[in-house]
Amino acid sequence: MIIIMQSDATPKEVADLVERLRASGADVSVSTEDGRTVVDGSVDVRLYEEAPWDSFPGVERVSPSVRGGRQVGREFKSENTVVPVRANVSIGDGSLVVVAGPCAVESRDLMMETARAVAESGARILRGDSFKPRTSPYTFQGLGKAGLEIMAEAREITGLPFVAEVLDPRHVGVIASYADMLRVGTRNMSNYALLREVGLHDKPVLLKRGRDSTVEEWIDAAEYIYSAGNPHIVLVERGVRGFDTSARNTLDLTAVPVAKSLTHLPVMVDPSHASGRRDLVAPLARAAVAVGADGVLIDVHPSPDTALVDGAQALLPAEFADLMTTLEAVAHAISGR
Amino acid sequence: MIIIMQSDATPKEVADLVERLRASGADVSVSTEDGRTVVDGSVDVRLYEEAPWDSFPGVERVSPSVRGGRQVGREFKSENTVVPVRANVSIGDGSLVVVAGPCAVESRDLMMETARAVAESGARILRGDSFKPRTSPYTFQGLGKAGLEIMAEAREITGLPFVAEVLDPRHVGVIASYADMLRVGTRNMSNYALLREVGLHDKPVLLKRGRDSTVEEWIDAAEYIYSAGNPHIVLVERGVRGFDTSARNTLDLTAVPVAKSLTHLPVMVDPSHASGRRDLVAPLARAAVAVGADGVLIDVHPSPDTALVDGAQALLPAEFADLMTTLEAVAHAISGR
Amino acid sequence: MIIIMQSDATPKEVADLVERLRASGADVSVSTEDGRTVVDGSVDVRLYEEAPWDSFPGVERVSPSVRGGRQVGREFKSENTVVPVRANVSIGDGSLVVVAGPCAVESRDLMMETARAVAESGARILRGDSFKPRTSPYTFQGLGKAGLEIMAEAREITGLPFVAEVLDPRHVGVIASYADMLRVGTRNMSNYALLREVGLHDKPVLLKRGRDSTVEEWIDAAEYIYSAGNPHIVLVERGVRGFDTSARNTLDLTAVPVAKSLTHLPVMVDPSHASGRRDLVAPLARAAVAVGADGVLIDVHPSPDTALVDGAQALLPAEFADLMTTLEAVAHAISGR
Amino acid sequence: MIIIMQSDATPKEVADLVERLRASGADVSVSTEDGRTVVDGSVDVRLYEEAPWDSFPGVERVSPSVRGGRQVGREFKSENTVVPVRANVSIGDGSLVVVAGPCAVESRDLMMETARAVAESGARILRGDSFKPRTSPYTFQGLGKAGLEIMAEAREITGLPFVAEVLDPRHVGVIASYADMLRVGTRNMSNYALLREVGLHDKPVLLKRGRDSTVEEWIDAAEYIYSAGNPHIVLVERGVRGFDTSARNTLDLTAVPVAKSLTHLPVMVDPSHASGRRDLVAPLARAAVAVGADGVLIDVHPSPDTALVDGAQALLPAEFADLMTTLEAVAHAISGR
Repeated sequence: MIIIMQSDATPKEVADLVERLRASGADVSVSTEDGRTVVDGSVDVRLYEEAPWDSFPGVERVSPSVRGGRQVGREFKSENTVVPVRANVSIGDGSLVVVAGPCAVESRDLMMETARAVAESGARILRGDSFKPRTSPYTFQGLGKAGLEIMAEAREITGLPFVAEVLDPRHVGVIASYADMLRVGTRNMSNYALLREVGLHDKPVLLKRGRDSTVEEWIDAAEYIYSAGNPHIVLVERGVRGFDTSARNTLDLTAVPVAKSLTHLPVMVDPSHASGRRDLVAPLARAAVAVGADGVLIDVHPSPDTALVDGAQALLPAEFADLMTTLEAVAHAISGR
Repeated sequence: MIIIMQSDATPKEVADLVERLRASGADVSVSTEDGRTVVDGSVDVRLYEEAPWDSFPGVERVSPSVRGGRQVGREFKSENTVVPVRANVSIGDGSLVVVAGPCAVESRDLMMETARAVAESGARILRGDSFKPRTSPYTFQGLGKAGLEIMAEAREITGLPFVAEVLDPRHVGVIASYADMLRVGTRNMSNYALLREVGLHDKPVLLKRGRDSTVEEWIDAAEYIYSAGNPHIVLVERGVRGFDTSARNTLDLTAVPVAKSLTHLPVMVDPSHASGRRDLVAPLARAAVAVGADGVLIDVHPSPDTALVDGAQALLPAEFADLMTTLEAVAHAISGR
Repeated sequence: MIIIMQSDATPKEVADLVERLRASGADVSVSTEDGRTVVDGSVDVRLYEEAPWDSFPGVERVSPSVRGGRQVGREFKSENTVVPVRANVSIGDGSLVVVAGPCAVESRDLMMETARAVAESGARILRGDSFKPRTSPYTFQGLGKAGLEIMAEAREITGLPFVAEVLDPRHVGVIASYADMLRVGTRNMSNYALLREVGLHDKPVLLKRGRDSTVEEWIDAAEYIYSAGNPHIVLVERGVRGFDTSARNTLDLTAVPVAKSLTHLPVMVDPSHASGRRDLVAPLARAAVAVGADGVLIDVHPSPDTALVDGAQALLPAEFADLMTTLEAVAHAISGR
Repeated sequence: MIIIMQSDATPKEVADLVERLRASGADVSVSTEDGRTVVDGSVDVRLYEEAPWDSFPGVERVSPSVRGGRQVGREFKSENTVVPVRANVSIGDGSLVVVAGPCAVESRDLMMETARAVAESGARILRGDSFKPRTSPYTFQGLGKAGLEIMAEAREITGLPFVAEVLDPRHVGVIASYADMLRVGTRNMSNYALLREVGLHDKPVLLKRGRDSTVEEWIDAAEYIYSAGNPHIVLVERGVRGFDTSARNTLDLTAVPVAKSLTHLPVMVDPSHASGRRDLVAPLARAAVAVGADGVLIDVHPSPDTALVDGAQALLPAEFADLMTTLEAVAHAISGR
């Protein structure tokens, strides 16, 4: 945190502020820049929230500790961030990482069957949620903790790490104790209580873009997690709200190179949830890889017709295997070799 | 909760389900309708979430306990709901209810000055938040609990109830112990953990429409609160995300009569946050009353230029007083007398 | 047209440009401003289009003849423009002007019946189109010229002027020879061939906002007409494309005060075509007047169920009469007396 | 055109209608289907517009001559349409067709230089417009007919056909006499006067999607051209209006497979105009090919910094050459060989 004082701030105003910051445990240094006093506190998002620093007498504005912008911004760090998920999987290192599995964990058997199938086809991370946010309150809400245990077993069998969605700040701890990676859904991109909680844990995070969020707001949400202490963030484009109703949402692939130009974080794409239509998943996944995404999330289900949740968008295991072959060919084509 | 069994469900499947429901504490009755077994459980949203009822053998679908749709729907209750806020204030009874105050509680003195001014001009409910969601993590986050105490003092002085925003399910209890009414902001309209928590308390709720939400989704969010046990809900239109950048958001006044045709809940409008521009607040507030809203939320600040938060959209107390006179005249004009 | 030369433009470059302008019939004057040569040509939009002036050697940029912005802008003329439609009707003079009638002229008898009814209730201008743009090519396209003759007869009977839509630049002449006012529809807001043609005639113009246009782009379209020679322009807000499907479009009433702050032109609102729903027309019309519009356009049809075009949105004559009473009361309420 | 009579239509009503159709020159046959009289007229879009057929006594509805939907629809013709542009170039035959050139023809020399460069790199069609629609009326409007002659010369030199934009129905004839292919821009997708005129000529047409158009509306516009007599239509996705401002528009690549599932027409993509940013053109062009587009349109300019129009989005010839290599590799990767 840097606090820039007004040009006519008095020495007493500066001293009072420094004292208050130190009382909060901050490590403070004071310098002068362009004729203005600049107070440099330690980076800790909880400190920002402790008091309305910019309302203190003599303060002009409060900005992040790093001059010139966000810590997740390219201007802060030019090389790409690689997010480690587990010993054998990293996102952002140039390889294509595919996250696959059913949208929700329905039963142990189905999950094991799906996990084995996607692992064989080359998926690197498993998905399968226990807590599902649904538009109507009267629908399947997931098997909860039992689902996490099923996912842990699937990890054991396949050797693949798994990602699980977090919906309530009170559940982040228990989910983080099972899962290898946390996911913040599109509905919660601006749920700051949840972002902060995720930022206080040390598991890597998939941060989905809000349906109504600009790329800038999406990156601001990532900065919120980062500034709370967790730098392992992967952005996931999953479609924005548009007026056309032929698919569920408008997948904004332009956002991939735009986000990559603005941040050093990896960017993935979720064509399954963006389109909500099984026939569109493969073409959109190919386009996501071609536009430069670090990976894709694909819903796979052994028999979509009986899926409890979002079955209409899940690929069959055989379709997924075919898609993996094509995606690798596209990744190869654009790598220039 | 009503569970409709498949037409070929076996007696054992029905018995197993009933047993499982009773184990969860539900009060269950079984009947037959159109040749299908219908299991009627007690209405409790926690029950839905406890298990994936619709994945039980023999189950066709799970629906709300009330046949034919949402409990907040007109088809369930045709007369308008009146939401009591405190002995002297109700929303939806035909009177015009204006909620006014600063966007954030900055200091005790400013709050008292503003509260007195808006009360004198005819405001019926005070606003002033202690916890503020902001896009960037590096900005004023509110005075927290101290702010709630200031609001309680303002209530004492003016006799007006006050509304406060809830952002984190873990804070709902403490905020509800101070405030007369809770507000769920636009960013949290689909934060189901928060909606459920608000539904478990007995304070009336202002539910803002999500920037990217259809009217149907907004009503579904209200149903979520309702089904968790809290029927005192007021919908607030506050603008949707659009492509025009001349104002902050596109205030969708069409949504007011549309929502009123679909639900029995009161509907209010927030022209201050929708537009983000002080010069647009008065015309949009007039339009909101003319379109049939039960009330409006207006940001008022004694000196907007120095406001910490959203100052550019706050009216001065004198402007607010003028607006109140006009709004009453418009309300009178459309009431047909 | 003003052409600003680069600071290092040579005298020969200036002389060549002046010669070329004069060859085109322009009345040219040359001056110096801030060290740069400024060539002032006469205002004629056809001149701009004759040659790519800004690609001439030494030219920095080409701008409208009036320094500092658009001729329809407030910065060019601060007082409101009043658009005369006929001896007895002006738009923008503080009175409320209601344009009413059926969406399309279906038959002589229906038109006369509707015209008489709306005139009696206080409408000031008749509508009823002969050429209708429809999404599908396989639908009613209007009675064409015969319709214009019916409208002229309705004018005779009621004493009210009428407005007719123009769709094709080749038809503007014939339509202008019958109608008192031309209307450019939302689909043609950026049809520059049509805008220019309308600008070359002397009939006042209703310019509907494009469904996908910002307020700025809408004003630019007005400037196009203005710069072609026709200053009698009325802007009409009629809804923008949004993601909510409960009404046909999202009526953007914020655009009314925004447009009035940016231009000196009158602004009207079309709640019938924006909503496409008869039950929404009255509340939205009230809101339009309350937000400060100079008038509204209302579809009226004696028996909407049999209307060929857009019948679902037309008011019955009796509903229109009631609405007129309310609109006058709202106009009175906001005028502060 | 097929006219379906109401089930209670009288023989006289049928006879009157047939007589009226024959008076208009239609070739009429009458049959009975499901107990209703069906009058089958010849397909000619001018006939539809001549009279409001669906308002004739006894008529229930008027539909296209082909039963079951649009003539451009898959349900009418299941195999893909191949659009011939000139002896050596067809669109939709499985090959990748790249249209390249400057956005506007600025000078003969620049055009020849660009044409030679893009031809060498593998472009199949040249672009370069003489009439440019611009938002502000005070900007370069193109060199007009002189530009068409330059384009014809570029065709001679390179052997590549060229496409030119049409903006005014009065200019379609002259442009069609020079160009090999016509282009209807995004602003004119719903300009029916222009669509009809284009439909009356025999040159193939690139039909850009309106910024605010659903895929269905886009296909309806194609049907309009088709039904006027011109079946050689190529759809071009070029971005829709969205709320994010990081690129000019939101390129909707989902629309490509959606349109291909609904129609038998080829679909291309314009990443240059969609994004308006040179750094985004290559990744979006790769994604367009990967998603299954039949080709792309790329702005190329020898020195973008001095381009009169849209220079910021044009690739340099060397960048274009590199992109061509990658696009061919991507096309190869997804073809499954």
